[in-house]
Amino acid sequence: MTTVDNYEHLLPPSWKTQVTIWLQEDTPSFDYGGFVVGEALREAFLLGKGGQTAVLAGKPFFTEVFEQLGCEVEWHMQEGETFEPVKHVATVKGKARHILLGERVALNMLARCSGIATKSKRIHDLARGNGYKGVIAGTRKTTPGFRLVEKYGMLVGGIDPHRHDLSSMIMLKDNHIWSSGSITNAIKQARKVGGFSLLLEVEVGSETEADEAIDAGADIIMLDNIEGSELVGVATRLREKWNGKRKFLFESSGNITETNLHERAING
Amino acid sequence: MTTVDNYEHLLPPSWKTQVTIWLQEDTPSFDYGGFVVGEALREAFLLGKGGQTAVLAGKPFFTEVFEQLGCEVEWHMQEGETFEPVKHVATVKGKARHILLGERVALNMLARCSGIATKSKRIHDLARGNGYKGVIAGTRKTTPGFRLVEKYGMLVGGIDPHRHDLSSMIMLKDNHIWSSGSITNAIKQARKVGGFSLLLEVEVGSETEADEAIDAGADIIMLDNIEGSELVGVATRLREKWNGKRKFLFESSGNITETNLHERAING
Amino acid sequence: MTTVDNYEHLLPPSWKTQVTIWLQEDTPSFDYGGFVVGEALREAFLLGKGGQTAVLAGKPFFTEVFEQLGCEVEWHMQEGETFEPVKHVATVKGKARHILLGERVALNMLARCSGIATKSKRIHDLARGNGYKGVIAGTRKTTPGFRLVEKYGMLVGGIDPHRHDLSSMIMLKDNHIWSSGSITNAIKQARKVGGFSLLLEVEVGSETEADEAIDAGADIIMLDNIEGSELVGVATRLREKWNGKRKFLFESSGNITETNLHERAING
Amino acid sequence: MTTVDNYEHLLPPSWKTQVTIWLQEDTPSFDYGGFVVGEALREAFLLGKGGQTAVLAGKPFFTEVFEQLGCEVEWHMQEGETFEPVKHVATVKGKARHILLGERVALNMLARCSGIATKSKRIHDLARGNGYKGVIAGTRKTTPGFRLVEKYGMLVGGIDPHRHDLSSMIMLKDNHIWSSGSITNAIKQARKVGGFSLLLEVEVGSETEADEAIDAGADIIMLDNIEGSELVGVATRLREKWNGKRKFLFESSGNITETNLHERAING
Amino acid sequence: MTTVDNYEHLLPPSWKTQVTIWLQEDTPSFDYGGFVVGEALREAFLLGKGGQTAVLAGKPFFTEVFEQLGCEVEWHMQEGETFEPVKHVATVKGKARHILLGERVALNMLARCSGIATKSKRIHDLARGNGYKGVIAGTRKTTPGFRLVEKYGMLVGGIDPHRHDLSSMIMLKDNHIWSSGSITNAIKQARKVGGFSLLLEVEVGSETEADEAIDAGADIIMLDNIEGSELVGVATRLREKWNGKRKFLFESSGNITETNLHERAING
Amino acid sequence: MTTVDNYEHLLPPSWKTQVTIWLQEDTPSFDYGGFVVGEALREAFLLGKGGQTAVLAGKPFFTEVFEQLGCEVEWHMQEGETFEPVKHVATVKGKARHILLGERVALNMLARCSGIATKSKRIHDLARGNGYKGVIAGTRKTTPGFRLVEKYGMLVGGIDPHRHDLSSMIMLKDNHIWSSGSITNAIKQARKVGGFSLLLEVEVGSETEADEAIDAGADIIMLDNIEGSELVGVATRLREKWNGKRKFLFESSGNITETNLHERAING
Repeated sequence: MTTVDNYEHLLPPSWKTQVTIWLQEDTPSFDYGGFVVGEALREAFLLGKGGQTAVLAGKPFFTEVFEQLGCEVEWHMQEGETFEPVKHVATVKGKARHILLGERVALNMLARCSGIATKSKRIHDLARGNGYKGVIAGTRKTTPGFRLVEKYGMLVGGIDPHRHDLSSMIMLKDNHIWSSGSITNAIKQARKVGGFSLLLEVEVGSETEADEAIDAGADIIMLDNIEGSELVGVATRLREKWNGKRKFLFESSGNITETNLHERAING
Repeated sequence: MTTVDNYEHLLPPSWKTQVTIWLQEDTPSFDYGGFVVGEALREAFLLGKGGQTAVLAGKPFFTEVFEQLGCEVEWHMQEGETFEPVKHVATVKGKARHILLGERVALNMLARCSGIATKSKRIHDLARGNGYKGVIAGTRKTTPGFRLVEKYGMLVGGIDPHRHDLSSMIMLKDNHIWSSGSITNAIKQARKVGGFSLLLEVEVGSETEADEAIDAGADIIMLDNIEGSELVGVATRLREKWNGKRKFLFESSGNITETNLHERAING
Repeated sequence: MTTVDNYEHLLPPSWKTQVTIWLQEDTPSFDYGGFVVGEALREAFLLGKGGQTAVLAGKPFFTEVFEQLGCEVEWHMQEGETFEPVKHVATVKGKARHILLGERVALNMLARCSGIATKSKRIHDLARGNGYKGVIAGTRKTTPGFRLVEKYGMLVGGIDPHRHDLSSMIMLKDNHIWSSGSITNAIKQARKVGGFSLLLEVEVGSETEADEAIDAGADIIMLDNIEGSELVGVATRLREKWNGKRKFLFESSGNITETNLHERAING
Repeated sequence: MTTVDNYEHLLPPSWKTQVTIWLQEDTPSFDYGGFVVGEALREAFLLGKGGQTAVLAGKPFFTEVFEQLGCEVEWHMQEGETFEPVKHVATVKGKARHILLGERVALNMLARCSGIATKSKRIHDLARGNGYKGVIAGTRKTTPGFRLVEKYGMLVGGIDPHRHDLSSMIMLKDNHIWSSGSITNAIKQARKVGGFSLLLEVEVGSETEADEAIDAGADIIMLDNIEGSELVGVATRLREKWNGKRKFLFESSGNITETNLHERAING
Repeated sequence: MTTVDNYEHLLPPSWKTQVTIWLQEDTPSFDYGGFVVGEALREAFLLGKGGQTAVLAGKPFFTEVFEQLGCEVEWHMQEGETFEPVKHVATVKGKARHILLGERVALNMLARCSGIATKSKRIHDLARGNGYKGVIAGTRKTTPGFRLVEKYGMLVGGIDPHRHDLSSMIMLKDNHIWSSGSITNAIKQARKVGGFSLLLEVEVGSETEADEAIDAGADIIMLDNIEGSELVGVATRLREKWNGKRKFLFESSGNITETNLHERAING
Repeated sequence: MTTVDNYEHLLPPSWKTQVTIWLQEDTPSFDYGGFVVGEALREAFLLGKGGQTAVLAGKPFFTEVFEQLGCEVEWHMQEGETFEPVKHVATVKGKARHILLGERVALNMLARCSGIATKSKRIHDLARGNGYKGVIAGTRKTTPGFRLVEKYGMLVGGIDPHRHDLSSMIMLKDNHIWSSGSITNAIKQARKVGGFSLLLEVEVGSETEADEAIDAGADIIMLDNIEGSELVGVATRLREKWNGKRKFLFESSGNITETNLHERAING
């Protein structure tokens, strides 16, 4: 058992074909520059630039880009490690034209992935600094076709990536409830197909609705537009009422930024 | 809100490309028979055969096979309905060669999907007949590449399809626990990446292990090799101990057949 | 020349991409369990279970699943060999998370492929035991998307997989004949595009139709709904009439089970 | 039943995805010209050019290119019809940028497909003119990835496309025979997996080998390097010897051109 | 000819398959929420939110997401139009579950595409406000797999997307020049394969190198690390020297932001 | 720096998947012959046949076919080298069934690629022999799906492959000009989206139109239907007029054959 978490172990076997598609996007037909530069052996240095402290994220994707091109990558930092620019992060060795074929693709991915990890860690640390002990979770608001990398960046930065897609958790919003007639009906319908292997989250707008959802067996209650001290009150009352009878979690969402995190992150 | 459940509403946008692949498998190059039979308009009757009462399942897949071929399907039964053979289930209208191109593919799918639904319903009804009120769930033991249809068949037959794949629920078995050193460590590791949006199930072999797993926050406890009255005892003791402090479900697995379901399906 | 037949030599270069798709199906996004279990080296034993004598089939697919995950498979049995459960069939060595990523996929495939080989061998041996010397052939009634594995299982079990798909043999049924006006016309049309490189089978319902089909040059005559001693009579008369002028084979189909095989399998 | 053969009825459902790939090849990213030309409605005329009598082939592929782009094609000729250039073959109607997106792709396909049909018809007519009544067949010597179109062109031109691929007929050459030890052994091995649903052709270099192959049950005998009157002699002797006992066809191959067709095409 | 530019006319036929992949990413297996919400007809309003003036971009991609799901989109704004939030941008009509299947995917794309167009327009307007008449161009620094949308957003915002990929323009940097021995050799090699149908850009670090590149026939000279008044001097001297003999453009790159654009955008 | 040009360095990372598709086309399901021939080690000789001096082209594609099958290729000639048949070009070593799986695919590709290189070199040498110093360029008239190989063959034969696809160069023809109202408008529209990173070619029918196109900033002027001495006159007058003000190239197209190349290839 290693002491350092290895986020690469989260990656499914299929992700390597995504990398192939990225390379195809950047060189659809001939590589004229590759003809000029040839196959002399070269070394390229990956330097962490930018003006601020950053978190490195995306190592397995970066390595895979170059492995598909027959190059070797030597890393000088751990995934998730914080660094001050300018920092020598990695060295790529291989044939000149292969390094150039992968360079832009690998850097584009790494800049985005590390950017997300850096921002995730900043929010995570801010919440912990404010004494918040709960979980901060991301959304499905990711770049189409690039979710795996972005969710991975959140994880490296310490944020719960939340449900990966529509198939991996049931989330009932006002639309679902209208269609079914009531919160209770919607939850009953959802349990019929989701069984007990998927969590069921319900978005509610009032304490009464929250109460109905808990009664009907929701696992997570998302309190929409209920904030600050009102949120604390609702949560406390419901926890007392259902203590020992139902188990549920609260979630608050919408418009959370680094600025207002302080008032939104309430323990419990 | 319809009173009949519409399982077709569960299907993601991507499933139609699977149907295209099935058609390609059955006619990789020329369709010599199609040349002979031509494009005269024809009607074909789908007859439910076999010797036993059966449950119809797979309508959306069947319809899609023929829609990709420009044919129309008219159904005379509801999805999930029970029928006695021989029964006229549907009518397909279209050009002769198109009907023949889809015939084998559509029937192969429908036979398997309805077969699974029929068996699922039989197990489900048997359990209900024995007074069991819990959930009966399937596994990932499906035909490679054909899981969507098979899980769909289970749902139509009234069985919880359980976790769809390795990404949609966390299940810790002995391997995971050995690697992490203890049940508690394994659960801690899993929560780090799964957050609160995925259920966490732990497979345990004794009451002590079950206790540790509940304490560490497992959502579902799978009791392996604990059966009959012993199972009832363990479940009762743990429920009492953790009442109001932790919430969890019990699951029993392995070697459940129509024959031994009676003794395995214990309420609670 | 090896004395043991190597069925793996039948597999086309493309089959390995199917295996990749199976793996993607089972882990579409993150592998949370893999994060917990890590990359410690492990050995897993494949045990042949179940209550009956079985035939092993599917070795190349099983091995490929694990090779795509960087694991090694050591086999202790030959493809097509019969074994009594419980039997130690193979050993898989690799990183813990890789073994778990492939385990379910590989077992699902092997169970189906061996099941088909086992049943095929049983039917084959039964026919041989009854003195039948002809060929027993499968159909296109396979699981959509999984035909290659299932036809492979039939071959290992000693059954002729018959035509693989609509492109690999011409089979004219009543539909084709109606469209063309007569058996003779249908055969003429088919020869125009199929030339002499594809066999032409015609399904007939009477001795007169069989006679017309032979006259028009059919390679195989499928006698539908003609059974038992009547079948023997028809076959004998037609063989005598066309002896030395036309060459053709007889085929009988429909509703053949282990029970009625005895009366259906008639030499000649 | 139409009196004109409709070769389009030979095409499997999957061929339309090939057309999509052709379009992608010709416009991998932005269509700058399309921005300039816009979506005004236009008509484009397809003119049959070139200096010689030609056979039209490829209509379904041509139509599909434009249907995928939302244009309509009106044909003024039948598939397989002979025309003298310059001839107005078809009219394409649609938005200006859509016509230009498909133009080059559709013409490239049609030029090749009609070229093959034209040449096929010339060889076919030449053989018929010389009194040859046998079948002239193509080979697998097609452009990689474009076989379906080229074999289709042969069919339209009146040539048997012969086996489509390695999976659709068994052909044993010297390599196969060496590996198995003898012609008889090779045929026995092949029958074991090919059963009776695939034709078996054997390439032989002498009358003795041909005799062994016929005895072992080959369906087609390919006489390599035996030509002219020697070929006639061998064929006659073997036909007499095996009359009424075995059925087989003769095939002659290699280096047949429009010039030497006369001496190679020998009836029987 | 329309007076409003129609950027949608730039899109190649293949882009629609990208949209299918985005939808698959968001719903890999069952859509449990869709089962609850059903197929009642609904209308959803797309509202332009955020705190600042924005440019709308991405209409064809947004529309395609919903067309693949059988919904209709009615737009209330032109592509490239500027709006103040909150603004009712479009209305989506369709079945409830279809709207929800497309909602997150369509919004994720639109937020990114409009964001890029908004930023592009701001830079473009800033440059024009400073009297700059040249072209401002983007780079290949796009999200892997999402380049088409991002380059499209740049175009809508008024920025030249520059070379789309490694195959669509030749750009020689220090690596290429080292490999070839000299600027002149590198250009000669590049012309050999790129002919006259691709522009050839050379990155140089001094006036002497720029002079050599122009002499050897480069189409575009990228002046690296030469800024401000020095840049003006170099450009003026070279233009005079080569006037009437060679034609070339200058390009300046690296670290251009909204803040320093003023000093970097020098006419000529 | 090597003295021999290495055209393989032009190939993008994606081309290897094309080779996989070719192999799938030739063996869609079982390889019956492979079962017979087995895995004994064999050597196969690639012989350059045919009656004429030829240019070898396609080495990387040929090698890749066999590498995907686990065979090794040893080359005895350089890419682009001229040879007299019969010549021993290469040796392939591997398992018998693997060699046979790749043989036809590899030869089909090599015959076409070398054929194009041979013809390209003949035209190129003919032009040089006539004193022509300009560039001879190919078109987009390639086999659908096979363009990369054919353009590669042109390059090896010394011909500029011209624009690879609709996305890699802007070419305005009469259609574009009609749609925009005038040559000047069409060029303005094109520049708006193509910026300065794509060359802009305009096809004109007269000297006046050519003049307008040059004035509006076209990079290349394609003179359609202007030939011989008239072409020389137009070119000379326009060069003088625009000397030092605009830079542009002339291109002549249509109906160039080995026979009329002499009169069409006019320097300048």
